[in-house]
Amino acid sequence: MAAGLPDNSLELRSTVTSDGRLELSLQDVPVPTPTANEVLVRVEASPINPSDLGVLIAGADMATATVSGTQERPIVTASLGAVAGLAARIDKPLPVGNEGAGTVVAAGESSAAQALLGKTVGIAGGAMYAQYRLVDAGACLVLPPGATAKDGASSFVNPLTALGMLETMRREGHSGLVHTAAASNLGQMLVKLCLADDVPLVNIVRKSEQEALLRTLGAVHVCNTASPTFEADLVAALKATSATLAFDATGGGTLAGQILNAMEQAASSTATEYSRYGSAVHKQVYIYGGLDTSPTILTRNFGMAWGVGGWLLTPFLMNAGAEVVGRLRARVADELTTTFASTYTREVSLAGMLRPDAFNSYVKRATGEKFLVTPQALP
Amino acid sequence: MAAGLPDNSLELRSTVTSDGRLELSLQDVPVPTPTANEVLVRVEASPINPSDLGVLIAGADMATATVSGTQERPIVTASLGAVAGLAARIDKPLPVGNEGAGTVVAAGESSAAQALLGKTVGIAGGAMYAQYRLVDAGACLVLPPGATAKDGASSFVNPLTALGMLETMRREGHSGLVHTAAASNLGQMLVKLCLADDVPLVNIVRKSEQEALLRTLGAVHVCNTASPTFEADLVAALKATSATLAFDATGGGTLAGQILNAMEQAASSTATEYSRYGSAVHKQVYIYGGLDTSPTILTRNFGMAWGVGGWLLTPFLMNAGAEVVGRLRARVADELTTTFASTYTREVSLAGMLRPDAFNSYVKRATGEKFLVTPQALP
Repeated sequence: MAAGLPDNSLELRSTVTSDGRLELSLQDVPVPTPTANEVLVRVEASPINPSDLGVLIAGADMATATVSGTQERPIVTASLGAVAGLAARIDKPLPVGNEGAGTVVAAGESSAAQALLGKTVGIAGGAMYAQYRLVDAGACLVLPPGATAKDGASSFVNPLTALGMLETMRREGHSGLVHTAAASNLGQMLVKLCLADDVPLVNIVRKSEQEALLRTLGAVHVCNTASPTFEADLVAALKATSATLAFDATGGGTLAGQILNAMEQAASSTATEYSRYGSAVHKQVYIYGGLDTSPTILTRNFGMAWGVGGWLLTPFLMNAGAEVVGRLRARVADELTTTFASTYTREVSLAGMLRPDAFNSYVKRATGEKFLVTPQALP
Repeated sequence: MAAGLPDNSLELRSTVTSDGRLELSLQDVPVPTPTANEVLVRVEASPINPSDLGVLIAGADMATATVSGTQERPIVTASLGAVAGLAARIDKPLPVGNEGAGTVVAAGESSAAQALLGKTVGIAGGAMYAQYRLVDAGACLVLPPGATAKDGASSFVNPLTALGMLETMRREGHSGLVHTAAASNLGQMLVKLCLADDVPLVNIVRKSEQEALLRTLGAVHVCNTASPTFEADLVAALKATSATLAFDATGGGTLAGQILNAMEQAASSTATEYSRYGSAVHKQVYIYGGLDTSPTILTRNFGMAWGVGGWLLTPFLMNAGAEVVGRLRARVADELTTTFASTYTREVSLAGMLRPDAFNSYVKRATGEKFLVTPQALP
């Protein structure tokens, strides 16, 4: 063990109990010693992404949450509606937190590991809501000079998702994108990326201030679902961009179907011959989030050349292969504090995550609100 | 012109008028003379498929239909709810009828065309609700010896759709199928095909007599949506078959989502590790028909590895390429009166199609009811 490191440290755990409760708590875990190609990262910053909340909250009704324990070690307990689908995690205290950044404070013997000592790195792979994380040296993204752990906290999920959307567009033969919940951190990255890569992008937001924010970033097409002219605006933007691939973070309700119908209207607006099956242009919506957990409702006036499906970052990266992933990661490092800069509205310690004023806020998944966890901060 | 052929013949036309009416009538058209590689087919039998009704009826409300004209030349007029999406066909009298069969009564000079003279052939490509049809010799499927035009009337759409489902399954890496509206002529073909090819098939029907019919054909897995145990039966059948690809003829309502959820339950029933994103098994439903035109409602409890989309025979065949299509067509010819045998519940002449007792029945698209048009029959 490197000099000055503690024997034990704190790690957040989420447990679904067999009697139908969610329990969030901080556990004491030993600080491991890296060997071979491993490094030990002191986690200094980790975001709360929508993709973390599934494991963290497990669908519990946080309106029922009570907090016990101490100031340093709060214990949150809440009711779960049902444990269906959760059988495999019952009574197993799961670590949480997909990504984060921090300082390499100890390293195994390999030269690659040793070379990282003292470096600030971005890491991914779960269990980041913790004070220390042991990872393989190859998993570390060395941050550019001057970048802080806070700068690098979100260097995987959102940047690689935005880049993955563009890769998917090119692979599947589309030439423009539609993005919903477009004012999110991810959406802002996508606006900057599409401008840089000259890819037409249609942004869908719910509020006029979100529209204004995206326009300051240079977004050309922004459609507001709250506007009375939303559907016509969307068709006009789709005619202008010929975008036939959408990434939808909401999932539920009628939005995916509205996008397909608007794409079909744009595609068939120049048709001269009647086809009872609609245009031959393939229109695709990938649902990559579940901000709206209500059913997806598709009113099928969009012909037969269409698809809706799930899209996830991890299978995309596995399919894309090491070379592509390496190229995407290098771009993230290069543009970490520009294209891929994230903004946070609040910082909390590990214990702070378990206080009602925090969890009642981050469980809302509100676009524009983003928490940063700082595991080294005082409780 | 070959001896004994008339100068003119009858052809059914469907017109959407600019003032919002559907008009169905019989037109006198010249009987053409084949040249080069063309042949003239005297159409003797042509089915009314669900895929014909879109062009024929154009979504008109047939409860408002009135019939004028004469016994020989009826004219049907009905109200259209809206002409949105129909702009490209307004005031154009469209021919109808995707496929049929008959006798080659005249041929162009090419040896391929001449070789077909007198042969009974199956043909596709539209305008089959007519007494004569000019086609390229290469488009003809020569029926096996002894097969009648009635035997060959449905030798394209349903047989190639059933074979296309199996091809799609193999191409996309699935090993079993689910089929809805499974008691249809197409469904019966699929049962026989899957038995012959040793492909596990889960049949979904709505009535116990449909279940009985499929079991007499040898179907192993038949789930009845009217049964109180439908959902459990479906999960059990999916566990037994590992089928992860469904073809759904209905399209609307909750059925596609129920299938995906049952596939996910089957896939995750053996999971030992919790995944918040559900199983990694890709679950796909292709909607290839629209028997239920209401919205598709997906209650997404099936993880993130899923897709729903449209599937159409013509783009499938275009993608598959000439070699595959040739192989599939040869199989249809070989097994025309066995695997691919169709049954009809009623025969009508061209004029007979335009009588209320006929159209009020075939517009219902009832599974198990099938009309055959016999254009040479007396009005």
